Amino acid sequence: MRLAFFAVLPGVLALWPIPTTLTTGTSILVLSSTFTITVNVPNAPQDLLDAVSRTKTYLATDNLQRLVVDRGASDAASFKASPALASLTITLQNTTSVLPIATEAVKDFSSRIEGYTLAIPNTGAPAVLSANSTLGLFRGLTTFAQLWYTWNGTVYSNVAPVNIVKDSPAYPYRGFMLDTSRNFFPVTDIKRTLDAMSWVKLNQFHWHITDSQSFPLSLPDFPELAQKGAYSVTQVYSPSDVQDIVSYAAARGIDVLMEIDTPGHTAIIAASHPEHIACSQSSPWTTFANEPPAGQLRLATPATVNFTTGLITAAAKVLPGKYFSTGGDELNTACYTQDAKTQADLKSSGQTLEKALNSFTQATHGALAKLGKNPVVWEEMVLEHTLMLSNNTVVMVWISSMNAASVASKNFRIVHAPSDYFYLDCGAGEWIGKNPTGNSWCDPFKTWQHAYTFNPLANISSSQAHLVLGGQQLLWAEQSDSSNLDSIVWPRAAISAEVFWSAKQPNGKALDGTEAQARLHDVRFRMVQRGVKAIALQPQWCALRPGLCNLDS
Amino acid sequence: MRLAFFAVLPGVLALWPIPTTLTTGTSILVLSSTFTITVNVPNAPQDLLDAVSRTKTYLATDNLQRLVVDRGASDAASFKASPALASLTITLQNTTSVLPIATEAVKDFSSRIEGYTLAIPNTGAPAVLSANSTLGLFRGLTTFAQLWYTWNGTVYSNVAPVNIVKDSPAYPYRGFMLDTSRNFFPVTDIKRTLDAMSWVKLNQFHWHITDSQSFPLSLPDFPELAQKGAYSVTQVYSPSDVQDIVSYAAARGIDVLMEIDTPGHTAIIAASHPEHIACSQSSPWTTFANEPPAGQLRLATPATVNFTTGLITAAAKVLPGKYFSTGGDELNTACYTQDAKTQADLKSSGQTLEKALNSFTQATHGALAKLGKNPVVWEEMVLEHTLMLSNNTVVMVWISSMNAASVASKNFRIVHAPSDYFYLDCGAGEWIGKNPTGNSWCDPFKTWQHAYTFNPLANISSSQAHLVLGGQQLLWAEQSDSSNLDSIVWPRAAISAEVFWSAKQPNGKALDGTEAQARLHDVRFRMVQRGVKAIALQPQWCALRPGLCNLDS
Repeated sequence: MRLAFFAVLPGVLALWPIPTTLTTGTSILVLSSTFTITVNVPNAPQDLLDAVSRTKTYLATDNLQRLVVDRGASDAASFKASPALASLTITLQNTTSVLPIATEAVKDFSSRIEGYTLAIPNTGAPAVLSANSTLGLFRGLTTFAQLWYTWNGTVYSNVAPVNIVKDSPAYPYRGFMLDTSRNFFPVTDIKRTLDAMSWVKLNQFHWHITDSQSFPLSLPDFPELAQKGAYSVTQVYSPSDVQDIVSYAAARGIDVLMEIDTPGHTAIIAASHPEHIACSQSSPWTTFANEPPAGQLRLATPATVNFTTGLITAAAKVLPGKYFSTGGDELNTACYTQDAKTQADLKSSGQTLEKALNSFTQATHGALAKLGKNPVVWEEMVLEHTLMLSNNTVVMVWISSMNAASVASKNFRIVHAPSDYFYLDCGAGEWIGKNPTGNSWCDPFKTWQHAYTFNPLANISSSQAHLVLGGQQLLWAEQSDSSNLDSIVWPRAAISAEVFWSAKQPNGKALDGTEAQARLHDVRFRMVQRGVKAIALQPQWCALRPGLCNLDS
Repeated sequence: MRLAFFAVLPGVLALWPIPTTLTTGTSILVLSSTFTITVNVPNAPQDLLDAVSRTKTYLATDNLQRLVVDRGASDAASFKASPALASLTITLQNTTSVLPIATEAVKDFSSRIEGYTLAIPNTGAPAVLSANSTLGLFRGLTTFAQLWYTWNGTVYSNVAPVNIVKDSPAYPYRGFMLDTSRNFFPVTDIKRTLDAMSWVKLNQFHWHITDSQSFPLSLPDFPELAQKGAYSVTQVYSPSDVQDIVSYAAARGIDVLMEIDTPGHTAIIAASHPEHIACSQSSPWTTFANEPPAGQLRLATPATVNFTTGLITAAAKVLPGKYFSTGGDELNTACYTQDAKTQADLKSSGQTLEKALNSFTQATHGALAKLGKNPVVWEEMVLEHTLMLSNNTVVMVWISSMNAASVASKNFRIVHAPSDYFYLDCGAGEWIGKNPTGNSWCDPFKTWQHAYTFNPLANISSSQAHLVLGGQQLLWAEQSDSSNLDSIVWPRAAISAEVFWSAKQPNGKALDGTEAQARLHDVRFRMVQRGVKAIALQPQWCALRPGLCNLDS
């Protein structure tokens, strides 16, 4: 037996994110044709049973061959003489309160229990997975399903025995953000994305559902917003769609963090409520917004404040999670300076724009507090404005990874979402028309290798480390929709899954992209087998020969 | 009636590539529910009848709504009062020799007739398409099918009448190159790509079928090359696959230019013929090759020269086209300097390496000449080596667009394939492992806007202009396979289709990306409707509002 991270050849370990502790062997262990998963959980919730069922389906259908030159052919000689694993027993250690995965997944960060232990003997004796929560069992099932390959109909592992004494996440927030406003993504796309997220133990779906370009969210209390603001009647998330997505996510250990970005990034609200939008489609848009079309909520207008708090309430109340994002990025002051209504309202209330923004934010965050929810905002709300924000506010750092330290110094909790590491859309060229330069604003392309070097604690003092909740990669969708969703997101978005779950290798060393590459190939090929069109990272020649395409090989 | 290129709003014209001459109107013309295409061609070949059938299918199933805010809803009021087009008559002007499209498509460049004329009255009177070849008729059918939108079941044009007195390509070679060696693409992927190529009148499929990483081409005379060199038994192009692809392409007006790259880029041949490969998988690969694995044909060894000429002959003879590429890029001399067998053979023949390369090339090109075919080579064969090449050789310029002038000065015909404009793989990060920088060698991403500024005659004198056959965009597949084929290729590869077919606007002005953008959206959305996952170029908000997302809007 040896530590798995030395096992580069020939048995590259497929686990992702790499567990906290791990020992593996070199035995072949065949999965019995009668393999069963025994659920030793009293009153096992349905979503746990469903997860068990999905696990068995993956084992039967992944049909993933090992990424070695012979794809496993030479393993076959050992199949007959190898022990067969007949069962996996999953056990809940704390049975006083057995909750569905979906309930555990949407708890507040400090209450989420995702850890588990897993032991797979190389003798054929039953494997055992145990955890303190159904969510932990789900994470362990995910790990279990990554250990198996198929050759000629036989499902087997080549690294038995496997022992994971402890595996639990370094950070509670491991997310992926999808913008469904610039371009629309059907529900099936989102569900497929949630599945892929769950395979690498991502647990937060940050749903940037609306923006200036379209308002696909249909809310019973505000039906007109989608009726007038969606791209079409078929490009809408109905209330049942939202519930469907939230339920689907939660059953896979994923909390949905919805964002309705305010007061900027709201131009399309003018389609149904022109009275609430300043500088609606004003020209030149470059004066009034970071991208077309211009238009922002009249944050100084009492009726608009009421409208917005009502909207935030209507959206937040349908979600089970404890957090909701009110956005707050890229507020444009020229828009308000030139808006007569805003100027009049500021004058009558005797407020500055900054004071009005504070009142506006207090109102929306107050609405969330009434629902028992905490606000999430983009970094400008604490770094560029002087607002009175509760310290239960979570701040997403996006402009630069360097800004995390400033946010920490203000004692706010942080989600790392830096454009310089984690923006998946960068590097594909400018989408603005008639642009002589034509480059992406956040060039270059954020490679998986670069993202993998992200240090969540860079410039964060040990006394501030508790403020770092985790992080996420993000897809802004100006140049994306169904056509390229899988290929632009996967396997790259698995990088933050490992950065924030594993944080380091089982041997205690820092994560190392050279070590990770072969495992990432495995993630990618398994995703493809499961119907997610993750891109190739290298020629297949290289994928089958770990290390031989390294620069120094 | 007005010239179409002024018709930016509201009736953006969908034609791509933009015809040589064009006038359009502003009338609605409905396609009759009994619309027929009358084929006024004696003994019409089956592939023409099939093309007519496909055209009718596209008209019935494209179901593409206009890219305007109301998607065509306001057009519907005019449907009842508008004339209906009951038929299109297609006429061959020269009926002395009626050949299949497939035959016309694979003729030598100077003999290809792709022009046509098209007139669509706005009265309901029959539309007329005429040409001097079935290939020309096919191009005209492609244009016809781009003119129609659908709203609520009604198929209609909003720019009738349409008159194209003349449309013919500025350049005879308009290609797309696909590398199927670094990663494999199934036949279905290639056929879908050929369909998309035909929709924008691309006419050369440059099939870089083999390289150092895999040899997926199964040849009856050399079955061992794929048996040992393909990634797997399922990742092979069988002889019938090749015939299938060649026939499918030709019926769509596309000639297949196959390349077996020699003498470099051949490492995988060592799997079946180690005797022919020098520096096979030598380490460090950086000394012996531009990418792993190292390995080149022993160009100085008579048996290897015989083997290679046999191989080139075996591949070229199954293809109907007049050209075949023997490659010739990135020859590594260190590989031969350190290869004892090569050094011994050079010594015994008294040749320098350069002389041996000349003999090798004479042999492979001689084999092509015996088949009545002309050689195609990469630019190094004329710019970095001193070889005696026939001036019927076609040279692909790839290292830099600046090198075209040097090739022209040597009086060789040119296909523009410059990495600084047309490499679709650039900008996605480095794929070589353990690379601290991690950037793509040909950063940045080649945007459609940049590619569209390519000038085929830059630095080419008027007396040399006849040497420019055309050009192509290229997909090297180190980081691509089925997962991202459509999204990395389309709609970008449509850019060279317009650069080399249209070359200028119908008004005589230079091509202009700002004018082209709305039409390119249309290309993209129509491709998606036809099952090709072309990427979004902008937020849908912008796609529906041409010009409003321009930098100066």
